[in-house]
Amino acid sequence: MKAVGIIAEYNPFHNGHAYHIAQAKKITGADLAVVVMSGNFVQRGEPAILDKWERTDLALQAGADLVVELPVFYAVQPGHLFAAGAVEILQALGVQDLVFGSEHPDVDFMDLAKQAQAIESEGQFTDRTQTFASAYAQQLEEKTGFTLEDPNDILAFSYAKAVLQSGKEMALHPIGRLQAGYHDQTFADDQEIASASSIRLALHKGKFDKIKNVVPEATWSALTTKPNTLDFEKPFFELLRYRLLTDTVGQLGQVYQMAEGLEHRLAGVAAAVEGPQSYQSFIKSVKTKRYTFARIQRTLLYTVLNIKVDQMQAAMADSYIRLLGFNDLGQAYLSAVKRQARLPIISRVDTGLAKANLRLDYKAGQIWQLLSGQSQVKVGQDLGRKPIYRQEGE
Amino acid sequence: MKAVGIIAEYNPFHNGHAYHIAQAKKITGADLAVVVMSGNFVQRGEPAILDKWERTDLALQAGADLVVELPVFYAVQPGHLFAAGAVEILQALGVQDLVFGSEHPDVDFMDLAKQAQAIESEGQFTDRTQTFASAYAQQLEEKTGFTLEDPNDILAFSYAKAVLQSGKEMALHPIGRLQAGYHDQTFADDQEIASASSIRLALHKGKFDKIKNVVPEATWSALTTKPNTLDFEKPFFELLRYRLLTDTVGQLGQVYQMAEGLEHRLAGVAAAVEGPQSYQSFIKSVKTKRYTFARIQRTLLYTVLNIKVDQMQAAMADSYIRLLGFNDLGQAYLSAVKRQARLPIISRVDTGLAKANLRLDYKAGQIWQLLSGQSQVKVGQDLGRKPIYRQEGE
Repeated sequence: MKAVGIIAEYNPFHNGHAYHIAQAKKITGADLAVVVMSGNFVQRGEPAILDKWERTDLALQAGADLVVELPVFYAVQPGHLFAAGAVEILQALGVQDLVFGSEHPDVDFMDLAKQAQAIESEGQFTDRTQTFASAYAQQLEEKTGFTLEDPNDILAFSYAKAVLQSGKEMALHPIGRLQAGYHDQTFADDQEIASASSIRLALHKGKFDKIKNVVPEATWSALTTKPNTLDFEKPFFELLRYRLLTDTVGQLGQVYQMAEGLEHRLAGVAAAVEGPQSYQSFIKSVKTKRYTFARIQRTLLYTVLNIKVDQMQAAMADSYIRLLGFNDLGQAYLSAVKRQARLPIISRVDTGLAKANLRLDYKAGQIWQLLSGQSQVKVGQDLGRKPIYRQEGE
Repeated sequence: MKAVGIIAEYNPFHNGHAYHIAQAKKITGADLAVVVMSGNFVQRGEPAILDKWERTDLALQAGADLVVELPVFYAVQPGHLFAAGAVEILQALGVQDLVFGSEHPDVDFMDLAKQAQAIESEGQFTDRTQTFASAYAQQLEEKTGFTLEDPNDILAFSYAKAVLQSGKEMALHPIGRLQAGYHDQTFADDQEIASASSIRLALHKGKFDKIKNVVPEATWSALTTKPNTLDFEKPFFELLRYRLLTDTVGQLGQVYQMAEGLEHRLAGVAAAVEGPQSYQSFIKSVKTKRYTFARIQRTLLYTVLNIKVDQMQAAMADSYIRLLGFNDLGQAYLSAVKRQARLPIISRVDTGLAKANLRLDYKAGQIWQLLSGQSQVKVGQDLGRKPIYRQEGE
């Protein structure tokens, strides 16, 4: 059985994602698609709109055959770690082809990664006035003539670097995106493909009719009936302020990616009378040129989740394959590769696991539920949950 | 100038408190009353209904001449530490008479304290199946024939012990209470004196008309117009659950008075799906025989305030006299004793103090404001606040 790998967030799952899965199978001639999907929090440091189970179910209904979780300690990370964590899981499952979207599908990203490695070994990344990414891109452009600036290209490049660093074979298949650009904030009424961010924006504006055209019916139904975190900013900001007011700067300084005295600035702004009254204005008032918006958001999420440097490092060194859902094909594939899997496969979480390896995902799930504003939660995100099973085409 | 000392919470200030101040001056022949009052949190581990400034103002309007804060690291403590902290402040201000309520005003509490000291030095407190207080009371009863069981008697006894241990002279004046018992939960429509706890209960039931009879008009007006924490339980429980879900048990274990693995029980109950859905039911589900309700509530408050053992110990060793308000008499007294004061006198808090000695009170003030549910706070509890000045009889 040949599997093709996809790395995704599905926040939320839309028509472009369904197309991507179909294309991935088609161009690689794969029997099934294995998806590594961010869990309850996504890379830009926000809670996923729908929880990981809903998003898994939607993916299974639209062509995915096996969905595993990208643990929070890799999902909420800068691109290179996000990519490294996802590639590690796909490789551990024996997947040897990776299909991803790119603004420049003709570029040889593996070659680009090799050129970058050469630059790195020359150690020319010393200009600290630029963000790491832009310093990188500039050097790479001088060397290759290709400008690494579009979001999917940057991610594609990260995948290539991760594969290169893994030392294992994995074929890379960039594919072009239909219509929607990653950063497009609007879409026309007759469009059937829109970017996830434009869909989120439309959701925030309550334009549910418009969204109906760009997502599968099952997504639309889930978005309108299931618990979601569309209004996460208010409760998130309350928890963040509370945390910043009650922890010492010494404690805050141990939070993952809290660097260069950021903890002092955060604590100061949080304590200010007449300080920012919303999460967005808070971010603006602590942001400096040095940090990207996403980097700040991730650090604030680590702060709310109270993830310390040592915990993050320990977790990344001890990853796993958490099964979220599969159909018969996916299950058959799992049975075939199980014995050679290079990471532990976890299908159910008990209290022991919840306190050990799984504890960051477990905590993330509980905070996701807090942020979704459900006053009474009858089922947790992890303890006792079984992977979702769906028959193909169901 | 002769001053009489009073130790109080004024939660809220009622007619019994006004009577107490008048009696205190009368029986000691004092020129003025110096009150040490709990700040924004009270001994049983709850936020004070009105903030410390409102309560100070009400006390000044009803006979107090100088009000200083009992810092949170003494205010939210078992009786013996509460008493020790308050007595230390009064003595530091040169106060040599203390008037307090008691169910048995004829008892010589200083003698009782001396008897207790003898028992202690014999080291007979080894029965760990009883709470410390009840073991104490039993031994004392065998020795003196007096049963130490009523709440004001127990507090009076704590004051006597604190004075004894201070090694400084201070005359103790127990006075009987009018009508209301400390634990009375109801009061009649024609009563003019009611216990603070029965008033709080009536407040919760929204019986504002009834309360009108038992509190000064100024209290009634403040209770109906100023920010308060009558509905603190819901936001408090949210912060508590969030804290318990995101800190490791190792971090929780460092919280002041977290003993005998309580942190594991707290974390377990907080994480349980279908666990307790209110603060009261949460307390019930973690309480064991060994701990009093107040002890548990205090520990949960330390948890929400994130006060660690080492911080508490450092703070108690470094107390201060924080001025909350005075009239001309109080100001004159302050001028007279200032030079000999045995603790630093603080009249304004700047950012330096807020980060140093005052940081626990500063943090407590910010959390009080969070719990009072004010969406936008224009004035903080500490930074830049001046003591309240009121002309006598104003």
